[in-house]
Amino acid sequence: MREPDGLRAGGPANQQGMRRSNLALVLRVIARTPRSRAEVATDTGLTRAAVSSLAEELIAAGLVVEEGPAAPSGKVGRPGTALGLNRDGPAGLGAEIGVEHLGACVVDLRGEVRAWRRQEIRNRGRRPAAVMADLAELLRRAAAEAGLRPAGLALAVPGLVGADGALLRRAANLGWRDVGTAAELRLALRAAGAGHLAELPVRADNEANLGGLAELWLGGGAEHFLHVSAEAGIGSAIVVDGRLLRGARGYAGELGHVPVHPEGPRCACGAHGCLEQYAGESAVLRAAGLEGVRGDWVALLAERAEAGDEEVRAALFGAGAALGIAVAGAVNLLDPAEVVLGGGYARLAPWLLPAMRAELAARVTVGPWSDERLTVSRLGRRGPLLGAAVGVVRSLLADPGRLEEP
Amino acid sequence: MREPDGLRAGGPANQQGMRRSNLALVLRVIARTPRSRAEVATDTGLTRAAVSSLAEELIAAGLVVEEGPAAPSGKVGRPGTALGLNRDGPAGLGAEIGVEHLGACVVDLRGEVRAWRRQEIRNRGRRPAAVMADLAELLRRAAAEAGLRPAGLALAVPGLVGADGALLRRAANLGWRDVGTAAELRLALRAAGAGHLAELPVRADNEANLGGLAELWLGGGAEHFLHVSAEAGIGSAIVVDGRLLRGARGYAGELGHVPVHPEGPRCACGAHGCLEQYAGESAVLRAAGLEGVRGDWVALLAERAEAGDEEVRAALFGAGAALGIAVAGAVNLLDPAEVVLGGGYARLAPWLLPAMRAELAARVTVGPWSDERLTVSRLGRRGPLLGAAVGVVRSLLADPGRLEEP
Repeated sequence: MREPDGLRAGGPANQQGMRRSNLALVLRVIARTPRSRAEVATDTGLTRAAVSSLAEELIAAGLVVEEGPAAPSGKVGRPGTALGLNRDGPAGLGAEIGVEHLGACVVDLRGEVRAWRRQEIRNRGRRPAAVMADLAELLRRAAAEAGLRPAGLALAVPGLVGADGALLRRAANLGWRDVGTAAELRLALRAAGAGHLAELPVRADNEANLGGLAELWLGGGAEHFLHVSAEAGIGSAIVVDGRLLRGARGYAGELGHVPVHPEGPRCACGAHGCLEQYAGESAVLRAAGLEGVRGDWVALLAERAEAGDEEVRAALFGAGAALGIAVAGAVNLLDPAEVVLGGGYARLAPWLLPAMRAELAARVTVGPWSDERLTVSRLGRRGPLLGAAVGVVRSLLADPGRLEEP
Repeated sequence: MREPDGLRAGGPANQQGMRRSNLALVLRVIARTPRSRAEVATDTGLTRAAVSSLAEELIAAGLVVEEGPAAPSGKVGRPGTALGLNRDGPAGLGAEIGVEHLGACVVDLRGEVRAWRRQEIRNRGRRPAAVMADLAELLRRAAAEAGLRPAGLALAVPGLVGADGALLRRAANLGWRDVGTAAELRLALRAAGAGHLAELPVRADNEANLGGLAELWLGGGAEHFLHVSAEAGIGSAIVVDGRLLRGARGYAGELGHVPVHPEGPRCACGAHGCLEQYAGESAVLRAAGLEGVRGDWVALLAERAEAGDEEVRAALFGAGAALGIAVAGAVNLLDPAEVVLGGGYARLAPWLLPAMRAELAARVTVGPWSDERLTVSRLGRRGPLLGAAVGVVRSLLADPGRLEEP
């Protein structure tokens, strides 16, 4: 018989483990809102002495600073002085490779954006090394602008990433296959004169995953939702109990290839009637009579729909209906508290929502569906890059014990 | 910004928590295979003294016994004596309400079935109290046969259960709505002269969930799978990282109402083209020219298909194709390591699999699909009842600290 739940991580509880977990606990309380040592002790149930010792360690690691009313007089450890996250401490560096753009961003420990750079550039079909060279330059500038010391680098990519976060297996819209993203980016950073950034731990992740995580962390909504986004392809992120569902091989969330009309048109993936054939970039542009148009398709469609273009509105209505069918199936399977339209779809929501709502109401019959459960992300297309940078900072906050002292 | 992952359960680590978690750790090691105290100390990293003290507590609770070579001479705490799970200790009592049957089962701490009773009876449209009276009698007999002291009672039902496990919200195939299953069953147990069973903690759960959990615990397969089963309706269980995905309201897994052909026939649920309209009991019987036939539909179809009935085989091929389309969508969303055909479908697998395999191969295009990932449960229709009984025992093993001493 398989072992009981929740015990597999195993190993006995011990003093080092306790200290590490209490370090994280204290940091969590401080991250919520600045607190004095006495307040931290009350909030956590730890002794005053333990809190003081843990706080010193967090201050030494640059994660926490003394602030609050009595701060300027500054005797270290003085009770009554509020402790807060250090906005000049270790930062998160985020990078994004899109089909039509690059992005770089720095957030501080409090999750505030300290630098944000975006460059429109057609990456489709370019060699990875050339794209990485442009991205490295953008990262170098963003890091210099923020003036903080990044603790890690996370990269959003429009494709499937291996579980180790080092290998981009396939990015159909870039024409890439088996690219060692972490290694390539490090090389490019060194060549760009940003050797200090090349020393950082680098992880790549799928843009839809990072968009979903950004929604979880910054969107302020549910702990259990389906985030549906579109850039060049359609992606989704499934969040369950506050955690991203990645799947056995890291390929979960491929809503774009859920069959909508099983005998429908053939998809680039080889299957028939996938959602992308009805609600993906090419399909919607074709339905709108805009096939082959270049540039930012989301902005173009939104502008035309706003201007009252009936063909564009009808195309978006059709895309919304297909989205509604696929999402209804996902809701029946997953029972999320919310469905969030993100990425490019957030901008297009006014014209997608009516048909989506109708399909969901008709097809989610197990327990009542209500329109309020279908929401629009306020992060929109900024999600993946924010998710990348904020994820670095959150890893630090969740386990400060792994940060070496500076 | 939302709090870091993995810290929400919160609270400081402390001595009582450590002891409780170490108690579970020791029990986990012993549950795997009988071990001496010295071996337990080696396996866990705990001191010999700590292991001895924890073992005494587990023995006093009736969970663990001395066994092995030197056991009969029996000095308690003697090193070298193997410790094993007590097969005469607290047991798990499982119950099942099917549309056409009732079931009761007792498993011991080692997960071995010590009593198994099944009664064929048409429950559709019967009043809950009448069904519970029959079930209580079956449970009384099963418990008497096993001669063990049950630590809890879990009930498998063909419907949606509230998060507290006390209320059956809807069981369409029974014609039930908002039935207080736990309270009703307790009343019936008292009336059946099984007052001791009425004192047990009772939890109801959806049969498809329990079938999926049984597959996880006893099936010996993956930690990440989709379990697809059929009884009167179609159910599924999604297991991720060894845990059942229940959904925000506990309604996850409704694969039967995933749209397969969105403009297809109207389903009892009100939507159009749901999987149940192609692969559910009524749909398959109709396609096989057996509409309205009573009794065990799975056995009937299997017998006829085995005998070479072409109409039945064609009906099952069609059901397999529809299952393949719906499951392909689920695989694209969830990326499970395996898809397991369970419940009644396990028996029908020889005729369902060919079309399912073809649809999956054609529609799961993100990462290669391989036929070996589609498997057949060896538990079949015994899954839900086994899952109910074993779940009781597993809760005990996972947290022995909550068991009061006898």
